[in-house]
Amino acid sequence: MGTSDGTLALSAFGSFTVGGRRVEITGRPAEIVRLSRDLPDYVADPNGAYSVGHAYVQYFIPAAARGLPVVFVHGGGLTGVCWEGTPDGRSGWLQYFLRRGQPSYVVDNVERGRAGWCPVPGIAEDSAPLLRTEQEAWDVFRIGPPDGYPGRIPYQGALFPCDHLAELTRQQVPRWVTTTELSVAAVAELIGKVGPCTVIAHSQGGGIAASAAAQTADLVQALVLVEPHGLPEAAGFSASAGRQLIVAGDFIDFSPLYLKLRARWHAYLGELRELGVTADYLDLPGAGHPGNSHLLMMDGNSDDVAALIAGWLESVAEKG
Amino acid sequence: MGTSDGTLALSAFGSFTVGGRRVEITGRPAEIVRLSRDLPDYVADPNGAYSVGHAYVQYFIPAAARGLPVVFVHGGGLTGVCWEGTPDGRSGWLQYFLRRGQPSYVVDNVERGRAGWCPVPGIAEDSAPLLRTEQEAWDVFRIGPPDGYPGRIPYQGALFPCDHLAELTRQQVPRWVTTTELSVAAVAELIGKVGPCTVIAHSQGGGIAASAAAQTADLVQALVLVEPHGLPEAAGFSASAGRQLIVAGDFIDFSPLYLKLRARWHAYLGELRELGVTADYLDLPGAGHPGNSHLLMMDGNSDDVAALIAGWLESVAEKG
Repeated sequence: MGTSDGTLALSAFGSFTVGGRRVEITGRPAEIVRLSRDLPDYVADPNGAYSVGHAYVQYFIPAAARGLPVVFVHGGGLTGVCWEGTPDGRSGWLQYFLRRGQPSYVVDNVERGRAGWCPVPGIAEDSAPLLRTEQEAWDVFRIGPPDGYPGRIPYQGALFPCDHLAELTRQQVPRWVTTTELSVAAVAELIGKVGPCTVIAHSQGGGIAASAAAQTADLVQALVLVEPHGLPEAAGFSASAGRQLIVAGDFIDFSPLYLKLRARWHAYLGELRELGVTADYLDLPGAGHPGNSHLLMMDGNSDDVAALIAGWLESVAEKG
Repeated sequence: MGTSDGTLALSAFGSFTVGGRRVEITGRPAEIVRLSRDLPDYVADPNGAYSVGHAYVQYFIPAAARGLPVVFVHGGGLTGVCWEGTPDGRSGWLQYFLRRGQPSYVVDNVERGRAGWCPVPGIAEDSAPLLRTEQEAWDVFRIGPPDGYPGRIPYQGALFPCDHLAELTRQQVPRWVTTTELSVAAVAELIGKVGPCTVIAHSQGGGIAASAAAQTADLVQALVLVEPHGLPEAAGFSASAGRQLIVAGDFIDFSPLYLKLRARWHAYLGELRELGVTADYLDLPGAGHPGNSHLLMMDGNSDDVAALIAGWLESVAEKG
């Protein structure tokens, strides 16, 4: 249940929200509901004002803060929980970057986790949300081949903690597919609030974070995109934009979905370089680190991958 | 965005889940959805295995831990966020008890916040969930009289940070009224995992925590119920059960709902005393602390109320 690799001294932690808007509902019927045995006939009236479309941000400020703040943006179907630990109980990238002294901001994006969502019809999240099955997680997170799922036989050399698939499925939350623009707006507002920063973003969060970075002038000094999808047009960035890094794991050659995404990653990085933006690619197996799934921050070598990212952040900072 | 009242040294923090079960779905149709511009024709197949009915727990372990661990259980429509800060940006009861050295476990109970929920029909959360309007929050959290809401005129002397109502509404999440038993089971599992502990629970969480405490023998050595509802029968506790305290705020005389709950609190405490259980009542205005709403942990004197609770915990510990 815990980690014990040294003390982490914080000057502050807490949370706030970004993004969203206020809506007013009128003309809907009230209903009587049972809130508890003491309140069996509570009148729930849906008419009135709601806050919708905001993101939740939990922040941690090291006592001896140094380096750029880090904004962490999770991928689709997950929340900020993905950064604070691994399914097998090791500490996460959040703790890794906090121990380096970097103030850290962990997002639960619009309609995910502690951001909440609006169940009142006609206001916000109206389509049916999706929740990933365990097998879909196995496939889309590239833990093993599709025909390996029944026997839970992962790719050879896979580093995802396969004995803890259930812990992964309990991290998953419903997601709507209609809230990308709201999510980009929330992350852009957060970046504006934090100021010059590093953003580390995963999967769907990579596309959201890159879109937000393009909207916030040059505040994002380093953008780490961990196997992103939904990337914006590179043309949205100026030549003075911060450096970008795409990090890719293993077993991509076995997945038509990721082969397609990898082609997009290279096209995006190439377009950035043409604009004069520093745009690097970290192919983990090619760099001597085989075995990573799509969930790099949860794999058995998660701290090693974090160290590689930290090394890249330092190298680009030195280049000034 | 932060607090700066001294360094907080942690040996660990992170999260895990408790409770819940695995379900398998078959025979449902798949659909094609657009996950992002890169994945416009993704096949979402709902058939397979899901984890449902679990609670999320975020834990913080002080480096110089001392005293019983504290389990925090939020009320209806809120999440663990209610303990980590106030709507006006002060630090919360979580930080208060961490600074005392107590390891702390913050629950997002079943279908709330980071616990996620199951949108697949026929499995778990099937009824329509409720989300509180701002006016309902004003009324049910006893911030001001109902006719004060249009002008945001609170009760005279009210200590809730009324200028930050929007921050409160953004903390609210949808809630189902059908998951109390699952929530009790999750909290009981958490108590079993943590071992001897103090539980601090608010509103609906008070009923849930008291029910869980009654099911976990005498592991809960002190149970602090902040304006609870849904309390179990006192007969569920043995004479050797831990001490219990109900904490009540101000303006109850103006609220038929809370007048009813207050009568229930006194009946419950009386029944506990007859069983030989130490059962105390802290009437804040009667003790010289006027002005509290139902959200005692967010009111302007939240640290003072925490200090009163900490004092009670010490006094019952001394009686040993």
